[in-house]
Amino acid sequence: MGRVTVRRPVRMLSAGGQRRRPDSLAAEEPLEIRVDGKSLAVTMRTPGHDVELAHGFLLSEGVIGSSADVFTARYCDSLDDQGRNTYNVLDIALSDGVPPPDVGVERNFYTTSSCGVCGKAALDAVKLKTRFSPGASAFAVSPEVLAKLPDTLRERQRVFASTGGLHAAGLFQPDGSLLTVREDVGRHNAVDKVLGWALLENLVPLAEAGLLVSGRASFELVQKAAMAGIPFLAAVSAPSSLAVELAEENGMTLVGFLRGETMNLYTGEHRVLAAN
Amino acid sequence: MGRVTVRRPVRMLSAGGQRRRPDSLAAEEPLEIRVDGKSLAVTMRTPGHDVELAHGFLLSEGVIGSSADVFTARYCDSLDDQGRNTYNVLDIALSDGVPPPDVGVERNFYTTSSCGVCGKAALDAVKLKTRFSPGASAFAVSPEVLAKLPDTLRERQRVFASTGGLHAAGLFQPDGSLLTVREDVGRHNAVDKVLGWALLENLVPLAEAGLLVSGRASFELVQKAAMAGIPFLAAVSAPSSLAVELAEENGMTLVGFLRGETMNLYTGEHRVLAAN
Repeated sequence: MGRVTVRRPVRMLSAGGQRRRPDSLAAEEPLEIRVDGKSLAVTMRTPGHDVELAHGFLLSEGVIGSSADVFTARYCDSLDDQGRNTYNVLDIALSDGVPPPDVGVERNFYTTSSCGVCGKAALDAVKLKTRFSPGASAFAVSPEVLAKLPDTLRERQRVFASTGGLHAAGLFQPDGSLLTVREDVGRHNAVDKVLGWALLENLVPLAEAGLLVSGRASFELVQKAAMAGIPFLAAVSAPSSLAVELAEENGMTLVGFLRGETMNLYTGEHRVLAAN
Repeated sequence: MGRVTVRRPVRMLSAGGQRRRPDSLAAEEPLEIRVDGKSLAVTMRTPGHDVELAHGFLLSEGVIGSSADVFTARYCDSLDDQGRNTYNVLDIALSDGVPPPDVGVERNFYTTSSCGVCGKAALDAVKLKTRFSPGASAFAVSPEVLAKLPDTLRERQRVFASTGGLHAAGLFQPDGSLLTVREDVGRHNAVDKVLGWALLENLVPLAEAGLLVSGRASFELVQKAAMAGIPFLAAVSAPSSLAVELAEENGMTLVGFLRGETMNLYTGEHRVLAAN
C-alpha cells in the first residue's frame, strides 16, 4: 500500500550510447472492491487514496450518493507470500437502508486499469441515470482561466514528473484554482479518486466545479462527471463521439484539446464566458 | 457499424479568435460479445474489425488458441430506435469440443473502453496462464529498427490523423516491417484487433513478432502479448510496475519510452541486438 512509484534498473539507449540506471515506474496493483463482504470489482490502480477510489467508484455506479451512505471502509486481511497484508482488498459496508448493488449490476461490475463503465450486461444498460442535474448548473468559466488549467494540473502531478506514466484528474473552480488533484495508472481511477474525495468532503453534487482530465474524454468519464453532478468536463486531448453525445444529452459542457489558448468547445458553450 | 469517425460541429477558440467548424471525432460505441448466445463482455470500442476484436479478446482471455476453435462469428439482430441493426452485438459459436468460459470466468468477463484484464473475481485470478512460451522465442531486433517503429506506426494511423483520438497497435518483424496495424479508442481493443487478425491468419503463436503500442504498457497489455505467444512488447510511453514484473516473469522483452533513438530496456535485453 502506498507504493506510488517502484524503482527498477533499466538500460537506456540513446544516440550517445547506453547506460544502466535506476528508473521510477508508476506502481500498478490490483484493488478488489467489496460491498458488505461481496466482491464487486477488481481494478488495476496505483496504490493510495483507495478509500476515495472506492467511494468514487460506487458514486459513479449509482450505488451511493453521499458520504452518509457508507458506514465503514476497511482493508481486509489479504496476505502475500510473506504473510504481509497487501492492502489490496477494501470492504465497504453500506449504511442501513442503502440498497446493495442488485445482482444484475453486481454481475457486471468489473473494472480495470482504464475501465469505468465496465460491463453492463446489455448495451442498453451502459448508460446510468444520474440522481443529480448537471445540466441545471449555472457554473461558468472564462477562456482565460481554462487556458491556464493544464499547466496548473501539471504542476500538481508529482508522480507523473518522476515516471511519465500517470493520468491525472482535478476539480477546478471558476477562478481556476484546483480543489484537488489525483493521479493513477488508470484514468478512470484518477477520476474516481477525485469524486470520492469530494464525496467524503460532502461536496457532492459538484454543481459549482469542473472536472479536468489529463488525457482523452471518453463516454465513461462524461458519465462519471454526470453521476457526481458536475456540469463541465475539460480534457487535454480528444473526446470520443459518445462522450460528446452523452455530454449534450445531460446538458453538460465538454471542452477538448485544451492546450493553452487553443481549445474546442463541443457542447454547452454557454458555460464558457466571454468567448468573443 | 463501420463508423470509424463521426463529424460534429465545434467552436474552436484560439489566440486569433474563434470560429465554428466541423470536427472529426473518433467513434466510440459499445460492442457486446456473446459466446454461444450468452453475454460475456461489453467493450466500448471504435466500430470496425469487430470479428477480429472478438477473436483477440477470447484469445487474450484463454478461451481459444487458434482460429479452428471458433465455428462462426455473426452479428445478432440488435435494433436501434429506427429499427436498424446496430451491429453492436456479436455472437461467437465455439467449435465442438472447445470448453465454454466457465462460470467463474464468465461472471467477471466484463470489459470497456480501455480495459482488458477486466475483472477477475479475486486478485489471484488476475493473472492468466499462457498456453504458449513467449520466453522461449529467439526473436530479436536491432535498436536501429526499433528507433524507426513509432514513425512507421504513425504513418499507418489513418484515423488518428483526422481525430487525434485513437490508440494504435501493430505487429512488427525483425526487419521493421509491420504485419498489421489497428486503431481504437481503447488501447486494449487495438491490441485485441491485432491479435484477432493474427489468429484468423493462423499466425498464433506469434513467436517471431513484436507488439508495438502507441501509448503506455500496462499489466493487461503484457498479459495479452503473452497469451498470444509474443516475446516482445515495445511501447511509446511508460510501462507500469506490474507490466515490467509480468514481462520478466514470462521471459519477455519490454521496451518503454521508445522515441526515436532513445528507449528504455526494462526486461529481456538479449532480444535487442547490437546494443553496444
